Amino acid sequence: MDGGIPRGEFGLIDWIRSQQQAVRRQGTVVGIGDDCAVLEFSPGSKVLVTTDMLMDGRHFRLADDGALAVGYKAMGVNLSDIAAMAGVPRAAVISVALPPENSVAIAQGLHAGLKRMADRFEVDLVGGDTNAWNGPLVVNVAIIGETTVAGAVGRSGAKTGDVILVTGPLGGSLFRGRHLRPEPRVREALALTEAARIHAMIDLSDGLSSDLGHILKESGNLGALLEAAQIPLHSDAIEQSQSDGIAAIDHALHDGEDFELCLVCSADTAIRLLGNSPGGTVLHPIGEITALPGLRIRDSHGIISCVQPRGFDHLRAPD
Amino acid sequence: MDGGIPRGEFGLIDWIRSQQQAVRRQGTVVGIGDDCAVLEFSPGSKVLVTTDMLMDGRHFRLADDGALAVGYKAMGVNLSDIAAMAGVPRAAVISVALPPENSVAIAQGLHAGLKRMADRFEVDLVGGDTNAWNGPLVVNVAIIGETTVAGAVGRSGAKTGDVILVTGPLGGSLFRGRHLRPEPRVREALALTEAARIHAMIDLSDGLSSDLGHILKESGNLGALLEAAQIPLHSDAIEQSQSDGIAAIDHALHDGEDFELCLVCSADTAIRLLGNSPGGTVLHPIGEITALPGLRIRDSHGIISCVQPRGFDHLRAPD
Repeated sequence: MDGGIPRGEFGLIDWIRSQQQAVRRQGTVVGIGDDCAVLEFSPGSKVLVTTDMLMDGRHFRLADDGALAVGYKAMGVNLSDIAAMAGVPRAAVISVALPPENSVAIAQGLHAGLKRMADRFEVDLVGGDTNAWNGPLVVNVAIIGETTVAGAVGRSGAKTGDVILVTGPLGGSLFRGRHLRPEPRVREALALTEAARIHAMIDLSDGLSSDLGHILKESGNLGALLEAAQIPLHSDAIEQSQSDGIAAIDHALHDGEDFELCLVCSADTAIRLLGNSPGGTVLHPIGEITALPGLRIRDSHGIISCVQPRGFDHLRAPD
Repeated sequence: MDGGIPRGEFGLIDWIRSQQQAVRRQGTVVGIGDDCAVLEFSPGSKVLVTTDMLMDGRHFRLADDGALAVGYKAMGVNLSDIAAMAGVPRAAVISVALPPENSVAIAQGLHAGLKRMADRFEVDLVGGDTNAWNGPLVVNVAIIGETTVAGAVGRSGAKTGDVILVTGPLGGSLFRGRHLRPEPRVREALALTEAARIHAMIDLSDGLSSDLGHILKESGNLGALLEAAQIPLHSDAIEQSQSDGIAAIDHALHDGEDFELCLVCSADTAIRLLGNSPGGTVLHPIGEITALPGLRIRDSHGIISCVQPRGFDHLRAPD
């Protein structure tokens, strides 16, 4: 296309195809340009699949953030779900509904952002569906991955007495736009599951209180006691707290879109992992699984209070 | 939930999970309720993945069609892409952006429609992403399938002298709402590829002129000569022609959303397939692949004219 603006859907698809590397990554048998992509995985591995949709005004603001940032985030949040299962991401398919103004430029920016994130994790963009409409921008990504010999880590394996850990500081992801720059913990999850048996894992997309709640519920309605002083606070949470008067710990518990992992393992395993940091993975122990259901937190004075999950609810009325 | 309205995103997810059968289909290791679904396929098979997004006002009209019909179509159009590769559909992930009014009822209707179509093809709904926003309804489906020993049939294998066939009558899919009731030719594609070597195949979603054009382009810029009298006209195309004055053959060539298969095979194979109709598959030979590039059509007087592809362009300005 020589820098020209591709015309129509098929022109755009040709342009996108031209942006892919000439040699497809191993495992992609048929990529963009057919009715389906064809993938070939390692014998014995299982297939992982996840999907996330991002809408203008809800998960990003196109006018402020730009299409490239939107694409980067859209791919990142899906990779984070593969990380949460300790999977290896392999290929992605993308659907977009483009607004009427600047639709081709938006599609190109999106693609650049999607590809920038995908390339960091050696993920092929193998197909998609490009549409125009009179509504705001909507981007959907579905990622296919595979499990390693360690198997997939679900949400249901937590046991009473297990230690809860997170891979990084939490809170305030909206304040400086960090939610647009997720760091999917794919390599960290693979290093952790290669080194030890992780009982349960989830990525922090909706907020610690909500996401840890899923592990507790799926593990047979267990509970957790968090130690407030041990929850790593992101500098964004501290800054935002100074600006909005909401305690930084509440930002850390409820904001979401940190895209760190929250994992649960036996105390012995936790001690070993904290000692050798597999793959350089940063780990913060933040509390313990309890037989008593519900999420509680102990403050620096030893006072325990209940935490109501109020992380991001995708059905909450939009602002 | 005992017939009550599920509250919030997680209430809705619980409701959807409760609608799935207690026993998962073979191959679904982890379904709804984790970060990813985990699937296990037959050893040696390849993985197929496809995605399609449907937007209110563009692919359906929610107020007229209802959420159930939208879900049914959204699943059907994706199954049709699996059929076009002669694959076996296995599992689907769904993303929705729900409008603010009646969002839970819409989600439930959508799910019923998605599941009705998925059940017909033994496809598991294994995960998704449910969102609310202030925009119109958007539904995205991604389907994972696998290939059979016959392998995937792509678009690039057509050869000069090959016969072009379609699996049913074409045109007028919008006129009586038939576009909402696709019949994905999954079983037909499997029967055909089990019985014979198909050189190229595509499903008729954008219109014969446009979709056959993809086969011609991908097969090395070949051409095709269609016989107008042999193209099966749907009764909808004939009725619509009487209403709008556009020739029924033009509806058949350009309307799209027929979701029949267009396949290409050698003349010997075509004769054999027409003789024994594998799996009861209806087949209509409609023309021949030519070395001369471009799509042409011969009318009943023997006059040949060029056909410009003008099927559904997803980037065409919406009505």
